[in-house]
Amino acid sequence: MSRNELINIIFRKRSFLCIGLDTDIRKIPPHLMQHDDPVFAFNKAIIDATHDLAIACKPNLAFYESMGARGWESLRKTMDYLKPMRQELFLIADAKRGDIGNTSEMYARAFFDPASSGSDFDAVTVAPYMGEDSVKPFLGFPNKWVILLALTSNKGADDFQLSHLLDPNIPLYEQVINKSKAWGSEENMMYVVGATRPEMLTGIRHLLPHHFLLVPGIGAQGGSLAQVAKHGMTKECGLIVNASRNILYASSGDDFAEKAREEAKKIQQEMNTLLIKS
Amino acid sequence: MSRNELINIIFRKRSFLCIGLDTDIRKIPPHLMQHDDPVFAFNKAIIDATHDLAIACKPNLAFYESMGARGWESLRKTMDYLKPMRQELFLIADAKRGDIGNTSEMYARAFFDPASSGSDFDAVTVAPYMGEDSVKPFLGFPNKWVILLALTSNKGADDFQLSHLLDPNIPLYEQVINKSKAWGSEENMMYVVGATRPEMLTGIRHLLPHHFLLVPGIGAQGGSLAQVAKHGMTKECGLIVNASRNILYASSGDDFAEKAREEAKKIQQEMNTLLIKS
Repeated sequence: MSRNELINIIFRKRSFLCIGLDTDIRKIPPHLMQHDDPVFAFNKAIIDATHDLAIACKPNLAFYESMGARGWESLRKTMDYLKPMRQELFLIADAKRGDIGNTSEMYARAFFDPASSGSDFDAVTVAPYMGEDSVKPFLGFPNKWVILLALTSNKGADDFQLSHLLDPNIPLYEQVINKSKAWGSEENMMYVVGATRPEMLTGIRHLLPHHFLLVPGIGAQGGSLAQVAKHGMTKECGLIVNASRNILYASSGDDFAEKAREEAKKIQQEMNTLLIKS
Repeated sequence: MSRNELINIIFRKRSFLCIGLDTDIRKIPPHLMQHDDPVFAFNKAIIDATHDLAIACKPNLAFYESMGARGWESLRKTMDYLKPMRQELFLIADAKRGDIGNTSEMYARAFFDPASSGSDFDAVTVAPYMGEDSVKPFLGFPNKWVILLALTSNKGADDFQLSHLLDPNIPLYEQVINKSKAWGSEENMMYVVGATRPEMLTGIRHLLPHHFLLVPGIGAQGGSLAQVAKHGMTKECGLIVNASRNILYASSGDDFAEKAREEAKKIQQEMNTLLIKS
């Protein structure tokens, strides 16, 4: 998906919500467990209930890998199910990959090359620690995106990302942003910036005035959508805000899909207001 | 596998060689392509030809993921085939994972919890960027190991790992080592240190006198085994040196397994000499 297509979807749907498919088999409503593939049955119901309210969908690979080959099969079915919605949903593989060049090339094929892997995501999250040659192979696919970890939403972001480099005013995550900007463009790179540190978004917007940011951390992790929009929104929106647990597990009963929709609707309505203001 | 068991295997086999199973279907000898599962057929032949010369085996997840569900099936079969060799081979999932706590917990189950995923590796490589809570979930499994990226073998290591923090004498990778040492112990943590910068191993040994190091980068990437041993070996060896491409693809003909064994044998013989010297 191109940048323009993404922006068009955001303003058409009046939403910048990403549904995080962190589907945990231990949290799926009991009545779904009789399905052949409960994870896929759950995802299908969540997608049906929320796709018109969201502009992106983000399977978290860990949750599928934790179930081995069976999990990959559930993911494949989910991706197949999403195929007819390709024009209205930006598909993100939340995988946090990154390795030496020849290995990153294989990861890129895993997520971007359907002829090789069967997967055809629009974007993949990538960890920056191994530097430029670990990121570049993902950028060789037209209309595919790297979403690079910059400032993540967890406590562990303090350990290194907020460490200061030579200049005591420049923490590591800023150096990651400064250096990596040259590796791609606003057309094929986004950054992960957690909602849990909204005050830092203003500074990040100085470094990245036009890039899209993927923002996890509202809901279960405590971040505020209004704060994120206040400090991070651009005139093209420039934000994809993810919600996972509070939508997926809004109810553990038969009404889980309906409750998921209610949660998604609440967020989308707030997003609609925030988009009007901007 | 415990630290003592690993050390015993090294001195019994007179080797600290890890065979990297970076199996690329495009490089497999043509005659194997008629097999139902060429990747597994190739791995099986390489394992048969080299298992007595090596002490560790390291499937590189990217290569399996690049083939989608089919690749995961090849990996599962490879792991099943390795089961009877559990007492003589340390099994590393080279996956470079790491995410917020609840997600890293799922990755840990993907590699360490056979009841959940079918996989039962001894160790997994983990990227440090997201900090302590992204690493800790992997350390909750007895006799399982985290191998944390410290100083990788690729050019991109210059981008951030060699950046200097507040103290201009302390690059990021040293800060990663200093901080992460407290997260686990010598019994459940190792570090990735590339063979391509052997002169830095002396400094790393000051910080990590007893930890095992996983060392990629000899062979195709140009690192020297003798230099790695000179600067990095301890009295318990303390090294697991990986070789992938130069063993796997020593020949592209019918004799690939035999040639792979010759390459592995050459390395093991040099390791034997290096272990005598130390």
